Amino acid sequence: MIKITFPDGAVREYQEGITALDIAKSISEGLARKVLAASVNGQVWDATRPIYHDSSLKLLTWDDADGKSTFWHSSAHLMAEAVESLFPGTKFWVGPPTEKGFYYDMDLGGRQITEDDLRTLEKKMNELAKQNNIYLRKAVPKKEAVEYFTAKGDEYKLDLLNGLNDGDITFYTQGNFTDLCRGPHIPNTGFIKAIKLTSIAGAYWKNDANNKQLTRIYGVTFPNQKELDEYLQMLEEAKKRDHRKLGKELGIFTMDDDVGPGLPLWLPNGTIIIEELERLAKETEQAAGYKRVVTPHIAKESMYLTSGHLPYYQDSMYPPMELEGQKYYLKAMNCPHHHKIFAAEPRSYKDLPLRLAEYGTCYRYEQSGELFGLMRVRCLHMNDAHIYCTREQFAEEFRAVNDMYIKYFKIFGIDKYVMRLSLHEPSKLGQKYINEPVLWKETEEMVRQVLKESNIPYVEVPDEGAFYGPKIDVQIWSTIGREFTLATNQVDFAQGRRFKLEFIKNDNTFDTPLIIHRAPLGTHERFIGFLLEHYAGKFPLWLAPLQVKILPISDKFLDYANSILQSLKNADIRAEVDDRNEKIGKKIRDTELMKVPYMLVVGEKEMNDQKVAVRRQGKGDLGVRSVEEFIGEARVEIRERRGD
Amino acid sequence: MIKITFPDGAVREYQEGITALDIAKSISEGLARKVLAASVNGQVWDATRPIYHDSSLKLLTWDDADGKSTFWHSSAHLMAEAVESLFPGTKFWVGPPTEKGFYYDMDLGGRQITEDDLRTLEKKMNELAKQNNIYLRKAVPKKEAVEYFTAKGDEYKLDLLNGLNDGDITFYTQGNFTDLCRGPHIPNTGFIKAIKLTSIAGAYWKNDANNKQLTRIYGVTFPNQKELDEYLQMLEEAKKRDHRKLGKELGIFTMDDDVGPGLPLWLPNGTIIIEELERLAKETEQAAGYKRVVTPHIAKESMYLTSGHLPYYQDSMYPPMELEGQKYYLKAMNCPHHHKIFAAEPRSYKDLPLRLAEYGTCYRYEQSGELFGLMRVRCLHMNDAHIYCTREQFAEEFRAVNDMYIKYFKIFGIDKYVMRLSLHEPSKLGQKYINEPVLWKETEEMVRQVLKESNIPYVEVPDEGAFYGPKIDVQIWSTIGREFTLATNQVDFAQGRRFKLEFIKNDNTFDTPLIIHRAPLGTHERFIGFLLEHYAGKFPLWLAPLQVKILPISDKFLDYANSILQSLKNADIRAEVDDRNEKIGKKIRDTELMKVPYMLVVGEKEMNDQKVAVRRQGKGDLGVRSVEEFIGEARVEIRERRGD
Repeated sequence: MIKITFPDGAVREYQEGITALDIAKSISEGLARKVLAASVNGQVWDATRPIYHDSSLKLLTWDDADGKSTFWHSSAHLMAEAVESLFPGTKFWVGPPTEKGFYYDMDLGGRQITEDDLRTLEKKMNELAKQNNIYLRKAVPKKEAVEYFTAKGDEYKLDLLNGLNDGDITFYTQGNFTDLCRGPHIPNTGFIKAIKLTSIAGAYWKNDANNKQLTRIYGVTFPNQKELDEYLQMLEEAKKRDHRKLGKELGIFTMDDDVGPGLPLWLPNGTIIIEELERLAKETEQAAGYKRVVTPHIAKESMYLTSGHLPYYQDSMYPPMELEGQKYYLKAMNCPHHHKIFAAEPRSYKDLPLRLAEYGTCYRYEQSGELFGLMRVRCLHMNDAHIYCTREQFAEEFRAVNDMYIKYFKIFGIDKYVMRLSLHEPSKLGQKYINEPVLWKETEEMVRQVLKESNIPYVEVPDEGAFYGPKIDVQIWSTIGREFTLATNQVDFAQGRRFKLEFIKNDNTFDTPLIIHRAPLGTHERFIGFLLEHYAGKFPLWLAPLQVKILPISDKFLDYANSILQSLKNADIRAEVDDRNEKIGKKIRDTELMKVPYMLVVGEKEMNDQKVAVRRQGKGDLGVRSVEEFIGEARVEIRERRGD
Repeated sequence: MIKITFPDGAVREYQEGITALDIAKSISEGLARKVLAASVNGQVWDATRPIYHDSSLKLLTWDDADGKSTFWHSSAHLMAEAVESLFPGTKFWVGPPTEKGFYYDMDLGGRQITEDDLRTLEKKMNELAKQNNIYLRKAVPKKEAVEYFTAKGDEYKLDLLNGLNDGDITFYTQGNFTDLCRGPHIPNTGFIKAIKLTSIAGAYWKNDANNKQLTRIYGVTFPNQKELDEYLQMLEEAKKRDHRKLGKELGIFTMDDDVGPGLPLWLPNGTIIIEELERLAKETEQAAGYKRVVTPHIAKESMYLTSGHLPYYQDSMYPPMELEGQKYYLKAMNCPHHHKIFAAEPRSYKDLPLRLAEYGTCYRYEQSGELFGLMRVRCLHMNDAHIYCTREQFAEEFRAVNDMYIKYFKIFGIDKYVMRLSLHEPSKLGQKYINEPVLWKETEEMVRQVLKESNIPYVEVPDEGAFYGPKIDVQIWSTIGREFTLATNQVDFAQGRRFKLEFIKNDNTFDTPLIIHRAPLGTHERFIGFLLEHYAGKFPLWLAPLQVKILPISDKFLDYANSILQSLKNADIRAEVDDRNEKIGKKIRDTELMKVPYMLVVGEKEMNDQKVAVRRQGKGDLGVRSVEEFIGEARVEIRERRGD
């Protein structure tokens, strides 16, 4: 008999060689129908793989990231099976799961895949899925594996085998398809109920432009049709709300070849949004006792050697500039500069918590192929701050940061969010994690406590902490249900020591501060990209680049319109007059297209009564009121940063 | 007879071979006593050099930059004569005038110069000056010159001779000292009435650390003792107001070896000043119809090849970063990025003038030896904007920019300023200056007209325009009379064409906009450095990092003090409570030292009456008033950005 420990701490005994799926069945058939894989001692396994030793066990379903990932990995194999049956002789490279689906890279011997082919493949996949073929795992000696793929003539798999050792090689077979694969996989193909192959792309073998170009087919699958339908609908809506399209139409940002990829230039309308976001952040941070600093965008190599970013993070940094025998790097993060400010003066416990904030601009190298509009860029304007505090102050500071997140979520109408709390793994202390077992336990417990008390939805993820402490990744969903990783909130016990930061305690001894890294609004780039989709470009009044457009019915009312414009400007409301010689219908339509929140229509009657006819974007006519009345209401709406 | 044309346009005839000094004497003996040199056809000459051809002539006195410069150059020779007489065998390298005085680099054969030596040298110089020795110019064949310095054993002068051609070599002799020198010089040593040798420094020969270190002696001289006394007094005052000293004491900025030389880190108090300056600039620019943009700090090489900054400006830029086969440069100026924003959309005459503003951070390479606190840095936060306009709009736009300068001068209490208008030289069109004779004439005349009409003090400087158009350098004086070059205001006909910028005119043809480059507040670095000296750290209320300090007479009044603090914070006034257990006298002294504008002293009586006793920095007791009264007054003082 072996002992199985469940996530709730319960321990039960089972026969040696039992599988996770058997255990699920022993609990309920309903549960067993949902089990896609299992986490055994922290490793993801086939649910059908026998367990021979005492183990901790977590059953993984569609609701677990690792469950989804296994599902999509198995779907990639299913797609490969369909491809092989329709296009015999195809050679396969790799077919991993992605954040949202899967792909497989393959060599179709010169054949071009069409959209029609994708539909045919989907049909074939559905047919194969219905056969409920099990995914069969088999350990294979290297010699045998090489013979198999030599016979098949697949030089790509042979190349993969080259890098593997005898004893580490497994094959997975479902139906008529066998793949070299580490696994794990779902129990059988029948779990895959809804299939969509989404796109075709070229991909150089091993990501190297000197190599042959392979065909990459992307797909996504679901355990039921409803989820696929919702997903496709969300994609359709997301296309309309594409931040690159809206960003261009609304004059938010532009890119330029001579400036460089991943380096957006913010146009006047985008800059207004940036400045409104910065105003919000500065107000919020000032009220929370932060102090602002400004630091250069470069620093010497020596600073990044101290911080440890060199050499570990070097691949994500721009290459150095060599000057006077020194290497200078563009900063990829603001923390080392802030640590230097902490270190610039002797600090006492009376100075703590010291909260240093900066909208620092960082530069990170992302591969050209990874760049995507504002979502994946090389230049990041970061809502950054570092909080230096004592251990006693930590929980309170961390709670305050969390409250700030929640406050922002409310302002931006973000109703769905989850905090992913990434923890350390005790067996890896001193290697993957800084060797401070007590601090790890204490801070993880404090963080967990804060999350519980604030009723914030959160999940715990073992063995994904940062090197220097537990971290929280904040995941948010836009109104159309797309998921974004907004920001991280991290605890740091390591950097303070690396930079020899100290404060004098009230007993005259010295201690190193704990550091909280936080960026609730993430970067302007990603956050404004998110907001464009979230609001479909229809920004709330306080964020809208142009807040009010005054539409005179004819030129006769231009002077009146301009006098209103002046009143609005005096009230710090961003406004313009549409002085074109156009019909009022067209003026309204054009203003709607530019997604301006308010339109003030003025004609004979309005002028005589010294009033305006108010229209709200998307809501139509709100009736007639005096200019003062309108300004008063608009100013409240702006000041309170109302959603809509 | 030759014709001499004077600056006012008058033409008179003189004998061939007459000197400028003779001409001055023919006007008045008083004038002749002031003439230091002469500008003959735009070249600075000895006042005693014969003129043989028709020429334009300007007599140069102490009031002319070139007059001063000649005076100091001659003073360097006088110092060298004194050195040679006291320390025979000294070898001389070069001895140029500087912005404020002169220096000479010399090889004293290992002898260390002391402060006492400087006093002895001054005495000797005074003695030699009183001999009224003339500066005698003599053309010398190269062979003879080489023989002279070989005999003297001065390898430094021989090295200089190496680079000169026969026929171009002149010697100047005064008293017992002869120097290889291009000149010009003042008529005789008697003009030099007041002498101060200010410092000693080491200087590598040819500025190369691999070479021998020479001794550099700095000095300054004046035509009368009074000016020297005033200058020394100003230096004394400037030392007290040294922005590096104040910057440290007041927590404005710090430097860090690991970040790099010339790269200030702005501390919280400095950042408050930065944000207040930016608020002022943004308000002012918004009212003036500017639009804000945000651009990256880097760009590809190709952009700077288009702009022409590469290769011409390369030495002032940081070296490139090589990425994916491309060179990226840190921006040394914002203009090319702004031009790209202009070019991002089709532009019509209706869009002009387009005024794009950004507090862009630029990076420029200055030699380590040139770096000086905030005054000479490598990181520049620039109050930048570029105005794209038609020719017809130019004068109006230029006038508006000038008005903005004047507005800022008033706010900062800058009473003394001069605009240096640098013009082109028609004979150098197509070489030093872009070949647009009509545009040059037109814009120079428009600029001149605006300066005249605005009653702005200005001087015209021939042959110092930028390549792409006339420019204005703005020179300001701090309250203690030190001169600073604040900013430049430039007209540009070239960049628009290089970047192929176009707008469609109302006749449907295309034209290239004129561009005005302007930065009235210069850079944060230099401007805040200036303000530290200008205000001696006693910032006006609106700029002061800490505006109000509340000083409870004892702990008994701490709660009352904190309630006042809350009221001040609610009114957006930056305030703190001095909650230390110290005597009120010490609290007041410490607060004065930190140069906080207002102190609110609260004790028994104030608490009972719900009032505060107000003290103003440097002015003492202002009497008792209610908190609301004080807040009301302070808010007006802040809003109006009052001087003091």
